[in-house]
Amino acid sequence: MERSLSAVLPGRPAGDRAPVVLVALSGGADSLALTAAAAHAAPRLGIRVVAAVVDHGLQDGSAEVANRAADAARALGVEAEVVPVVVGSVGGPEAAARQARYTALDETAGRWGAAAVLLGHTLDDQAETVLLGLARGSGSGSLQGMAEVTGLLVRPFLGVRRAETRAAVAELGIEPWDDPHNDDPAFARVRVRTRVLPVLEAELGPGVAEALARTAEQEREDAEAFAEMIEEFIEEICEPAEAGLSVDLGPLAANPAAVRNRIIRLVARSEFGVSLSRAHTLSIAALVTDWRGQGPIDVPGIRVTRNGGRLHFSAPDSGATLLE
Amino acid sequence: MERSLSAVLPGRPAGDRAPVVLVALSGGADSLALTAAAAHAAPRLGIRVVAAVVDHGLQDGSAEVANRAADAARALGVEAEVVPVVVGSVGGPEAAARQARYTALDETAGRWGAAAVLLGHTLDDQAETVLLGLARGSGSGSLQGMAEVTGLLVRPFLGVRRAETRAAVAELGIEPWDDPHNDDPAFARVRVRTRVLPVLEAELGPGVAEALARTAEQEREDAEAFAEMIEEFIEEICEPAEAGLSVDLGPLAANPAAVRNRIIRLVARSEFGVSLSRAHTLSIAALVTDWRGQGPIDVPGIRVTRNGGRLHFSAPDSGATLLE
Repeated sequence: MERSLSAVLPGRPAGDRAPVVLVALSGGADSLALTAAAAHAAPRLGIRVVAAVVDHGLQDGSAEVANRAADAARALGVEAEVVPVVVGSVGGPEAAARQARYTALDETAGRWGAAAVLLGHTLDDQAETVLLGLARGSGSGSLQGMAEVTGLLVRPFLGVRRAETRAAVAELGIEPWDDPHNDDPAFARVRVRTRVLPVLEAELGPGVAEALARTAEQEREDAEAFAEMIEEFIEEICEPAEAGLSVDLGPLAANPAAVRNRIIRLVARSEFGVSLSRAHTLSIAALVTDWRGQGPIDVPGIRVTRNGGRLHFSAPDSGATLLE
Repeated sequence: MERSLSAVLPGRPAGDRAPVVLVALSGGADSLALTAAAAHAAPRLGIRVVAAVVDHGLQDGSAEVANRAADAARALGVEAEVVPVVVGSVGGPEAAARQARYTALDETAGRWGAAAVLLGHTLDDQAETVLLGLARGSGSGSLQGMAEVTGLLVRPFLGVRRAETRAAVAELGIEPWDDPHNDDPAFARVRVRTRVLPVLEAELGPGVAEALARTAEQEREDAEAFAEMIEEFIEEICEPAEAGLSVDLGPLAANPAAVRNRIIRLVARSEFGVSLSRAHTLSIAALVTDWRGQGPIDVPGIRVTRNGGRLHFSAPDSGATLLE
């Protein structure tokens, strides 16, 4: 597990003060094992480890749970801080708690001038994320799982099984906290963990979780390659247009479907904040690939018209059809 | 279902004789519904439909089952032919039966001069194929499912649910044949159908099969885009070398990981017939991206050496290490 850690942490600039690395600690086995690994590696890596325990205040005794986690971190030889947050309700309880947690970690990282914030997500979490994405079925975008590094956030344990973190914590003689939410089948992730993955493993053999995690890695690579490719020419082919944007038809037609459809989705997302379904994406793409003089395509939030060698994306009420 | 059919069938050259379209008919609901749809659409599409019933001779009474299927096809107004085959044992019973079936269909298509061979695979089959691929976890390559068109083979029903074919056949008053193999949990595909997909649908909501099928479509698009991209320059960057092939390091380093790893896998497959695991692919890629003067990388069937601005792929016993 320590190897995972040193592979992803930023190198320490020679002569500088030891950079602070924050560990997001819930008190569960995964983040306790991560704190222990970071504490153990700190001297060698030349980092100063600080455990940040976010107290969501959602359950009775949450402050006590948080304080116990902070004490466990101190017993492991690192500094620790409890960060109480107030969880709102936007997007449902899970999303609101996540939002509050990441905001608090961000603020804490800023306060400490942290070089990285370590998260305890394991290979099992990654496999669950891929399955949840698969059920949404929005293609490679939804199969990428979690990134190893996103800005300050680093997930060193994406290649580590949850059973390993439990074993590591048991070996250290620490009693991990078991979040009752982790057993509540009201959460889709819990159902994936307790009901779906065990069936997949039983019927298709062990190694399914690892296979899902490998899939996430490869999907992420693919998505990055397409993003890089499109970034190279997206500016050139787009032009501001009345109440929206227009895109040159030539490159849309010349590129393979995977690139064309991604450009269409990118324009919808970045210009209109719309996340297109595959069906809507394909109906817009048909203006390029299957042109029979059809009229504008209306999808929620966007009207797309083919006109004069360009695809015009506009807000639906902008009167852009007058262009025709 | 007929719309699916006309969308994928080749257009009829004006003035020619009606092209023969073969339907691979097992006697099950899917291929019966396909035969019925093809028979119904034949006049409008200007095609001549012939049902080919492969008799694998694996079960008692298989000839009777085949003849009954052929009779059902004739009752639907199309010609029908029973093609008996002898199933070998190479690759296990499923693979051997599939091999014998496709060989027989190919031969029959040749004999009739068929323009296409229709297969009755449904959206459900596609979803099962994606799940089977996911459990192997070799990335987007294993999530592509089945192609709608591969050479002569055409699958018009990849967007049609199995329940729809059953309903269509019931409405026609035809009794479909239920292959006992379709209920035998010794087959991984049967377990996916009867145990895995129902759990996914129950726990993650309906629409999982459709989501899996959409994933297959997008993964196939992605794979085609990468294949096209690599095809454009693979010849330029490869050179024959002693007992193998060498690849220019420059483009390997300059391209994103998704392209680099695909080039490595392509060379292994096409030159050495080796299907590289992700771990082996990454260890070879490290010669490009993480060069610290390391020695040759040995993977089953291939030795890869970095030397003079090129990666040398050779057979392990070829003495290619002398190049160093």
